[in-house]
Amino acid sequence: MDIAMIGLGRMGAGLSRRLMASGHTPFVFDRNQSAIDALASEGARPLADLKDVTQLTPPRAVWVMLPHGEATESTIRALADILSPGDCIIDGGNSYYKDDVARRAFLEPKDIAYLDVGVSGGIWGEREGFCMMIGGPNEEVSRLDPIFAALAPGIGDLPETPGRDGRDPRPAQGYMHCGPAGSGHFVKMIHNGIEYGLMQAYAEGFDILRNAGTAARPEDERFDLDCADIAEVWRRGSVIRSWLLDLSASALAKDQALESFRGHVADSGEARWTLEAAVEEEVSAATIASALFARYRSRRESTFSDKLLSALRAEFGGHIEGGSKSERA
Amino acid sequence: MDIAMIGLGRMGAGLSRRLMASGHTPFVFDRNQSAIDALASEGARPLADLKDVTQLTPPRAVWVMLPHGEATESTIRALADILSPGDCIIDGGNSYYKDDVARRAFLEPKDIAYLDVGVSGGIWGEREGFCMMIGGPNEEVSRLDPIFAALAPGIGDLPETPGRDGRDPRPAQGYMHCGPAGSGHFVKMIHNGIEYGLMQAYAEGFDILRNAGTAARPEDERFDLDCADIAEVWRRGSVIRSWLLDLSASALAKDQALESFRGHVADSGEARWTLEAAVEEEVSAATIASALFARYRSRRESTFSDKLLSALRAEFGGHIEGGSKSERA
Amino acid sequence: MDIAMIGLGRMGAGLSRRLMASGHTPFVFDRNQSAIDALASEGARPLADLKDVTQLTPPRAVWVMLPHGEATESTIRALADILSPGDCIIDGGNSYYKDDVARRAFLEPKDIAYLDVGVSGGIWGEREGFCMMIGGPNEEVSRLDPIFAALAPGIGDLPETPGRDGRDPRPAQGYMHCGPAGSGHFVKMIHNGIEYGLMQAYAEGFDILRNAGTAARPEDERFDLDCADIAEVWRRGSVIRSWLLDLSASALAKDQALESFRGHVADSGEARWTLEAAVEEEVSAATIASALFARYRSRRESTFSDKLLSALRAEFGGHIEGGSKSERA
Amino acid sequence: MDIAMIGLGRMGAGLSRRLMASGHTPFVFDRNQSAIDALASEGARPLADLKDVTQLTPPRAVWVMLPHGEATESTIRALADILSPGDCIIDGGNSYYKDDVARRAFLEPKDIAYLDVGVSGGIWGEREGFCMMIGGPNEEVSRLDPIFAALAPGIGDLPETPGRDGRDPRPAQGYMHCGPAGSGHFVKMIHNGIEYGLMQAYAEGFDILRNAGTAARPEDERFDLDCADIAEVWRRGSVIRSWLLDLSASALAKDQALESFRGHVADSGEARWTLEAAVEEEVSAATIASALFARYRSRRESTFSDKLLSALRAEFGGHIEGGSKSERA
Repeated sequence: MDIAMIGLGRMGAGLSRRLMASGHTPFVFDRNQSAIDALASEGARPLADLKDVTQLTPPRAVWVMLPHGEATESTIRALADILSPGDCIIDGGNSYYKDDVARRAFLEPKDIAYLDVGVSGGIWGEREGFCMMIGGPNEEVSRLDPIFAALAPGIGDLPETPGRDGRDPRPAQGYMHCGPAGSGHFVKMIHNGIEYGLMQAYAEGFDILRNAGTAARPEDERFDLDCADIAEVWRRGSVIRSWLLDLSASALAKDQALESFRGHVADSGEARWTLEAAVEEEVSAATIASALFARYRSRRESTFSDKLLSALRAEFGGHIEGGSKSERA
Repeated sequence: MDIAMIGLGRMGAGLSRRLMASGHTPFVFDRNQSAIDALASEGARPLADLKDVTQLTPPRAVWVMLPHGEATESTIRALADILSPGDCIIDGGNSYYKDDVARRAFLEPKDIAYLDVGVSGGIWGEREGFCMMIGGPNEEVSRLDPIFAALAPGIGDLPETPGRDGRDPRPAQGYMHCGPAGSGHFVKMIHNGIEYGLMQAYAEGFDILRNAGTAARPEDERFDLDCADIAEVWRRGSVIRSWLLDLSASALAKDQALESFRGHVADSGEARWTLEAAVEEEVSAATIASALFARYRSRRESTFSDKLLSALRAEFGGHIEGGSKSERA
Repeated sequence: MDIAMIGLGRMGAGLSRRLMASGHTPFVFDRNQSAIDALASEGARPLADLKDVTQLTPPRAVWVMLPHGEATESTIRALADILSPGDCIIDGGNSYYKDDVARRAFLEPKDIAYLDVGVSGGIWGEREGFCMMIGGPNEEVSRLDPIFAALAPGIGDLPETPGRDGRDPRPAQGYMHCGPAGSGHFVKMIHNGIEYGLMQAYAEGFDILRNAGTAARPEDERFDLDCADIAEVWRRGSVIRSWLLDLSASALAKDQALESFRGHVADSGEARWTLEAAVEEEVSAATIASALFARYRSRRESTFSDKLLSALRAEFGGHIEGGSKSERA
Repeated sequence: MDIAMIGLGRMGAGLSRRLMASGHTPFVFDRNQSAIDALASEGARPLADLKDVTQLTPPRAVWVMLPHGEATESTIRALADILSPGDCIIDGGNSYYKDDVARRAFLEPKDIAYLDVGVSGGIWGEREGFCMMIGGPNEEVSRLDPIFAALAPGIGDLPETPGRDGRDPRPAQGYMHCGPAGSGHFVKMIHNGIEYGLMQAYAEGFDILRNAGTAARPEDERFDLDCADIAEVWRRGSVIRSWLLDLSASALAKDQALESFRGHVADSGEARWTLEAAVEEEVSAATIASALFARYRSRRESTFSDKLLSALRAEFGGHIEGGSKSERA
């Protein structure tokens, strides 16, 4: 089954390599020739131009793995002109699910199928497999099953979930057909929203542990705790064991004070959209909102909000907070 | 009616002056002789030593107006030895209400009455009157009514609240007998907890207004707004008009960018206790908690929490966030 | 100066009456004839049909005061066909500011001016005046100044804000030209977002006061507090005095237990948009988000979220939470 | 090495059985004779009375596994009179860490060692091993190492954390000496605080997924998602895989609608104390606070807070919210 991978960054290269490891030979393309050459040297089939996706045997499958927004959008528009009826475009990036809905409407009259695939696994996916949440027409999802099966982690050595007899076997392999166009990225968006909440919960907990020796507390209630060991011990048998905890243990083992990090944390969009979806559905997402706002705050030296609080304290109480005396490290 | 004011800081001096303005002649004492002299020069009766409160005609009333914690506690302990059965100690500071409960238990066997009075009004109280929330025995609250009436704002020109006929007239004068020992400071504590929430709501709103011109939004949706004028216009007829808004308008008229403030915001304890009370009562106080945590965050350059988020992003996605490129002013 | 009021609900009728009280004679129109008749009997000039706004002397000013969304949008589209170059449409409802930006773009080629006016004051505005936040071209805002001045509360007996000498005098009268199209509703939207935060802060505080007698606390720390009196006492001299507190005092004086309310709280859109703006600007609005989510939660008997928590507790700890034993009133 | 287990509930019985499976023969005691008999029939040595712990060969180790609070406290007080210098009391329950500090001070003069052990693993620990966080003197922790090693999960098949060479090997076995008395329960408390945050993040995410088909959204953006399959697919390769997700998949596979749960969620204390510690340390714990408050809210039909919001909306806007019309399932 022919497939082309457009975009050979960390994720696109990883997907291509995992396909090759399963016996597939993807066509590969990137704006950056050296990225193409690297994959070609490992056995992939290089494309000199996006237009050359016509080399694939129809019905063609073209997997776009680019930053969401303009890069993805313009590539899909270009592919719509290049491809033929019966072909299929797969967006494996982190697109906004409402864009998927619009794209399906745009591609349907051209009889080009559109799949949106939310992919989780980060830089580890090449080795461990990618978790995939797929939106689009049933027929195409079935046709491309060998591709998804090759990319997915498979059952692995995880204990089977009781009560799944008779259910769709694909989720237990690590990929899932969620519903029509947009549903794949919708589920991936919520996945990332949850990720923000989980990360923030660990972060707050370790912050409290890290500051447990503070002089603000009675002397015999102060503890000088080893966060690296705590992360490690929780990995085994605790209720909060997780892959993110494994990564925390790894980061803290390298540098318990995390001194190489400045603490300005980026956000990549999904938590914003999760919040938007929660608002539209009238569902409370207080924890996820809180996690997103913590990242916003992390990127500011100070805020107008905080300054107004100080200004008000000066107005009603005569408290002066322009200086730095009360600051703690 | 004889009363002594112990502690002549901003609040103690203001209370003394308002008493004098109503024809009372308080005895005054402070560790700082110049504070005593200043009040004495305006007509107050100076005390050379705490012990000299015995000069008051029994039953004596001694109002302690000191920082909560050690200063207040040790002064009340000392007064317990100096005063006589039938006398009364009033704590007008921001004490923790559980300390009031303990003090009543300590003073009861000595037949010394104890009143806890939460006082709001800040540096404006001397002119406008102090809002007082009083805990303690009914008899003492009644006996000291002339003092409370003199300190309170009175009815003023506020419209009367409909439906209060037949109710206790004191709240409409600006003072209230809340219940037994501790209840005055409990009500004042909640007052301050609410204050944190209100301040934070205004602060967040003005922060969004202040940043409404950000390049992150489509060009024709960017606004360069005058926050000083906005605060002013909201003072008249809007649903969110309030005294804190008056103060916001005042602060913003002086300096719309609030550049003299660094944005490190102190907290003085009551919001912490409010949170504790909410937890004990199993009542959600998410907004007040959020306001308190914003102040904690304002005092840190960076947090271990944020650094762990960056560390995790590096672990799972290869994102490097040690640098400063993504920073916004 | 001729003006027509389209929509004679609570707000439209109040605006019309306040205009008449200042000597203006507005034209009035509503889908509901009896609403027109009522205003006409008080001196307004009735319009039999929307098309009859052509009766106004040009340049015409037509104030649309309808529910935001479809009702407002279709009326403005219709007016665009009825009115002539040089006329002006004013949207006084709670429109989404991005809709204003689109409307200006739509009306500009027709040379019809567009003003968006955020109006605060609710059912009290007719008597006390309406606080207005105005977006649109400077020329039109100036031309309509007599209308805005008549509707606004005026300076009233509020103390003047120090430091405003030489500033635009209109905000101190209760109306403000915020900027171009959309800016009026943007400022009103933030006003409402703040309102949500303020209301929630009071609500949480009174909830803690109301439950201060809970048996979950030590017996001598339980208080049976009178929330009506507390709201009343805070009105005088306290830091948290406000119009919303006046209303709280009024509501609690009528019924201290608020038993006539079920506690299902609606939200009308502005807090959602405030949150969206905060997200777009990368400004933390944790308190306002929390207030919005509390309203969502108030409208549900139970949530899937809560059920999953119970399910997880059953899975890892064998805790059974299907029953009702632990419920508190 | 002799050890007695006091308290044979779910956790105490599980610990005893895991000890027996490793070749230990614990003494066992419970108020409930049948609990003793059950364990005795499996090989444990029954104690007829708490006083009979003197049958253990000194230095004795007595593990108390009871509900925190009065049950644990009175048992430890009783043991302090029964045991001899050189013996050791272990509190394996979920005690408040400040109680541990007090207990150490109480037991030290009697030369009885005190260990506080936070134990995670729930009903699964017997089979998979218990994760243990230990506070107390180094000497005792070393002496009891065979007990801890037997109870812990061991390294298992988890990948080793890079960078741990030369570090204490015990955390990688699933137990850790955290520091002096109280530190074990402090770390366990934070563990549980994080657990609340993690659970709430998953819960919010699944709530949004569950409601993705709501009519409040445009028709082509509505999705009817299978939450059981989503939980399952995320188990494999996704960034948010975790043991709590395994349990979510299991619960949802049984009943995707979670209809057997009412959604009244208990909290057991640790999140409250985590919040208290965060407040004392001046560290933001907004996410954990939010998770705790969501549980409080889940247990109420309605709140005074919500009623006040409705009352205010009636006061300023004439909105009536006593009825049930706007309710959603």
